[in-house]
Amino acid sequence: MKIHLTIFFCFLQFFSVTTSQNKYDSLFFKLAQEGLDKTYSHTLLSELCTKIGHRLTGSESAERAIEFAELKMKKIGADSVWKEKFLVPKWTRGKIETAEIIVNGKKIQLDICALGGSISTPKNGITAEVIEVQNFEEVRQLGDKAKGKIIFYNRPFDKKRISGAYGAAVNQRSTGAIEAAKVGAIGSVVRSMTYALDNKPHTGAMHYDDSVKKIPHGALSTISANLLSETLKKEKNVKLKFILSGENHPDVESANVIGEIRGSTFPNEIIVVGGHLDSWDKGQGAHDDGSGCMQSIEVLNLIKTLNLKPKRTIRAVMFMNEENGLRGGKNFAENKNRENEKIIAAIESDAGGSFPIGFGATTDSTKFEKLKSFSKYLEFIGVEKITKGGGGADISPLEKQNVPVIGLNPGGEKYFDFHHSDNDTIDKVNPRELEFGAIAMTILSYLISEEGL
Amino acid sequence: MKIHLTIFFCFLQFFSVTTSQNKYDSLFFKLAQEGLDKTYSHTLLSELCTKIGHRLTGSESAERAIEFAELKMKKIGADSVWKEKFLVPKWTRGKIETAEIIVNGKKIQLDICALGGSISTPKNGITAEVIEVQNFEEVRQLGDKAKGKIIFYNRPFDKKRISGAYGAAVNQRSTGAIEAAKVGAIGSVVRSMTYALDNKPHTGAMHYDDSVKKIPHGALSTISANLLSETLKKEKNVKLKFILSGENHPDVESANVIGEIRGSTFPNEIIVVGGHLDSWDKGQGAHDDGSGCMQSIEVLNLIKTLNLKPKRTIRAVMFMNEENGLRGGKNFAENKNRENEKIIAAIESDAGGSFPIGFGATTDSTKFEKLKSFSKYLEFIGVEKITKGGGGADISPLEKQNVPVIGLNPGGEKYFDFHHSDNDTIDKVNPRELEFGAIAMTILSYLISEEGL
Repeated sequence: MKIHLTIFFCFLQFFSVTTSQNKYDSLFFKLAQEGLDKTYSHTLLSELCTKIGHRLTGSESAERAIEFAELKMKKIGADSVWKEKFLVPKWTRGKIETAEIIVNGKKIQLDICALGGSISTPKNGITAEVIEVQNFEEVRQLGDKAKGKIIFYNRPFDKKRISGAYGAAVNQRSTGAIEAAKVGAIGSVVRSMTYALDNKPHTGAMHYDDSVKKIPHGALSTISANLLSETLKKEKNVKLKFILSGENHPDVESANVIGEIRGSTFPNEIIVVGGHLDSWDKGQGAHDDGSGCMQSIEVLNLIKTLNLKPKRTIRAVMFMNEENGLRGGKNFAENKNRENEKIIAAIESDAGGSFPIGFGATTDSTKFEKLKSFSKYLEFIGVEKITKGGGGADISPLEKQNVPVIGLNPGGEKYFDFHHSDNDTIDKVNPRELEFGAIAMTILSYLISEEGL
Repeated sequence: MKIHLTIFFCFLQFFSVTTSQNKYDSLFFKLAQEGLDKTYSHTLLSELCTKIGHRLTGSESAERAIEFAELKMKKIGADSVWKEKFLVPKWTRGKIETAEIIVNGKKIQLDICALGGSISTPKNGITAEVIEVQNFEEVRQLGDKAKGKIIFYNRPFDKKRISGAYGAAVNQRSTGAIEAAKVGAIGSVVRSMTYALDNKPHTGAMHYDDSVKKIPHGALSTISANLLSETLKKEKNVKLKFILSGENHPDVESANVIGEIRGSTFPNEIIVVGGHLDSWDKGQGAHDDGSGCMQSIEVLNLIKTLNLKPKRTIRAVMFMNEENGLRGGKNFAENKNRENEKIIAAIESDAGGSFPIGFGATTDSTKFEKLKSFSKYLEFIGVEKITKGGGGADISPLEKQNVPVIGLNPGGEKYFDFHHSDNDTIDKVNPRELEFGAIAMTILSYLISEEGL
C-alpha cells in the first residue's frame, strides 16, 4: 500500500473538520487531538502492567493496584477520590502445576494451570485413565465408566461461528468439574478457551456445587489438548497425571476505587465509566481489564485537561473482583450511601483495548434512540456503531436496577488469544487503539452529562 | 470480561440467522461459515510467507510467488488462469547497510536500510556532519550550509492526526533525496514511516529527479532517529557515517497472475478483486500485501466451494510491482487483449489483513448509492461500512478509465507498525481477521455480479 488509502483518510479528516454542523464538533475534535497526542491511557496501563503486573482479587498486587488508581485520579485533579470497601473471596495458585501423559512407559509433558477456585490435587497429583468428551451429555452417558477416571473436555471454539464461540464453549470450564464429579471422575481438565493454537494455558473461573464432590479442575493449552487428543486416538492405556495446588482462603477486605468530576448543574445525576481492576494471575491483565480501568481514568483526565465542567457527575469506577465473584459490581449497586443519587447510565470497557467500533447498549427504546442520536458525534473517530445489547459484568447489577448499561465494543478477533493467559501483556495493547476507546468513552459520557438520557 | 459480552454476540448471531428478510442471507451465512471454518486465506498466506517470503519486483522470489499463485488458482478449479507479462524495474539491496554516529571519538551504531531505488554510497560510505530538519522548507533555508552535509529528515508521524499521518510524513522519504541534493547535501536519511518505536528500519519507494544529482537515501529505525536527534541536541561536531549498497538494474520481465470464474450470463462483464503480489524486501510482505492476494484467491475458492455460478465474471488479479513502479496496475488497465470486456468494478485489498470494517468506494453517486444498498448484506459479519473515497494503487489506472474502484478498509492503528519492515510477518496476521476480509470481498463481488453496478 502506498498513497491511495491515505488520500481516503485525509478526505475523512478534512470532512470531519470542515463540516461543523454538529454542536460539539470542534470541542470533540480538540479532545481527540489531545488524547491521541498524549495517549495517557497507555502510559497509565504500561505503568500498571510493568510495576504491578497481574492483580488477582485478594492479592497484595490487587491492593497495590487500588493505591495506584487512587493516586493517579488524585494527581489528575478529580474532585473526589475514594474507596468503598467490602469482603472478597481469596484463592491462591500453588507453585506446582504439572501434567504429563503416561503411555507405553513414556511421559509427555503438557502445559497446565489450575482454573480459578480449583482445589488442589494430593501432593503427588492424580494419575488415572483419561476420557475425552465434547459436552456434558457425553459425560452423563459415561455413567459408571467415568468412575476413578479423569474427564478431558476438548470441545474447541466453534470456528464456524461468526461470534459467540467463547459463550458456547465456556461451560466446560465453569461447571465441568461438577458434571465430571457427578459420574465419579476424580479430576477434570479442559481445553483452553481460545481460538489460538499456543502453549499457554488460559485460566478462568470455575465453580463447585456444594451437593457434589469437589475435584481438581485444570486448563490445558490448546497445543497440549491437541497432543492429548491425538495420543488418545493412537494409543491404548493412556493415563494422565496432573498436580495442581491452588487454595481457597477466608474472605479478605478489598475495595472499589472511585474518582469523579462533580456535575455543575445536576451533581446527583451520575454517569459511571469503568472497568475491573482485578485480573487473573496470568500475564499482566493488560487487555483484561487494565485497559478498561486506565481508559476510565483517562476519561476524567481528558475532561480535566480540557477544563470541561460537565452538568452531571462523571464517575470513574474501578471495580474489584469481576473475575471470581463480582463482589465489586454488587457492592457498588447495593451501596446505601448513595440513596440521594441517581445513576443515569453506566459505561463499561471490559472487552479489551483493541480499536473500538462503537458501543452496545441495554436500555429501553427511547433511551436507546437517544444514544443512537449521539452516534454522529462519534463518526469522526470511527466509533459510531451503537447496537442493541451490551453492557458489562460489573455493571450488570445496575442493569437489574434498570440503569441503562453500555459496553465499549472493540472490533477484531484477537481478544481470546490473550484472555486469562500469559499472553495478556502490555506489548499487545496498541497505544492509539486503546486511546481511541478512551476518547469514545469520554465523548459518550460527556454527551450524556450535557444532554441527559 | 466474562459472559456479558458473549450474550451480546449471541444476540447478534441469532438476529442474523433468524431475520431472513434479505434475499441472499442464508447463502451468505453459509459462505461465511465455510470461510471461517477453513480460513483458507490464512493457510495460503502462511505458505506464501514461509516458503517464499518477501517478493521484491524483479527478484527470483517474486517469480516463485507468481508460480505459487498460478498453481493455487488452478488447484481450486478457476475456469481460467493465466499470466500477463510486461517489463518491470529491478532494484536490489546490497549486503552492507550500516550507520553510525561519530561523536567525541566514539561510535554509536544505528539501524539503517536503503530506501527502494537508492543509489549506493561509495564502498567506504559517506561521513559528514548531519543536519536535522522537519520539512523541505527548512532544507531550502539551509542554502549553502547544507553543502557536503547529510540531511536527516526527522518529522515524525503526527500523533494528533486522527488519520492520514503516513500521507502527511511520506514526502520526506519519497522525495527527500531530491530536496537535499538541490542544496548540495551528499546524502540523506529519514525517520521510518511508523508510529511504532522500534529498531526496525522501514523501507519504501524513493525517487530521483533527472535534473538533480542523485544521492544515497536511507531509512533509520525510529529508535535510531531518536538517538541521533538527542545526540545532535546534546553534542557538537556530530558526524554520521553510513554505507548503503543498493543497485538499479535494467528492466526484466515479470507478470500479473490472473484467475477467474467465468460469468454465466454476462461473461464479458468483469468484477476484479485483487492485491499486489510484490512486496518490499523486508519481513515477509504478510500484511502488505500477501494478505490482499490470498484473500482474492479465497474469493474464487469460496465461490467454487459453494458451487455458485455468478452471472458476471469474477476475476482475481495479483498485480506485480505496486511498490516501486505500478507497472502491473498500468499494464492491466491498458491491456489491448480485452477490448471486448467491460470491467464494471475493481475491488482491492491493500491496507493489511486486520479485521475489516467495510469498504471505501470511488465512483459516481448512483453507483455509490447502489453499493451502499449492499451494506445490509455485510452487516451480519460487521463489515457493512461503505464510505466515499477509496480504492487501491493497483486499480488507480482503472479509476482513470472511470471504472468504479473499491478498497477493503481494515480498522485499527497497527498497519504502519508492520509496513515495509521486518515486522511484517505471518504471525501478525490473525486467521479469522484475514478471512473476514476475504468473506466480505466475496460477498461484495458476488452481489455486483448478480445485481450489476
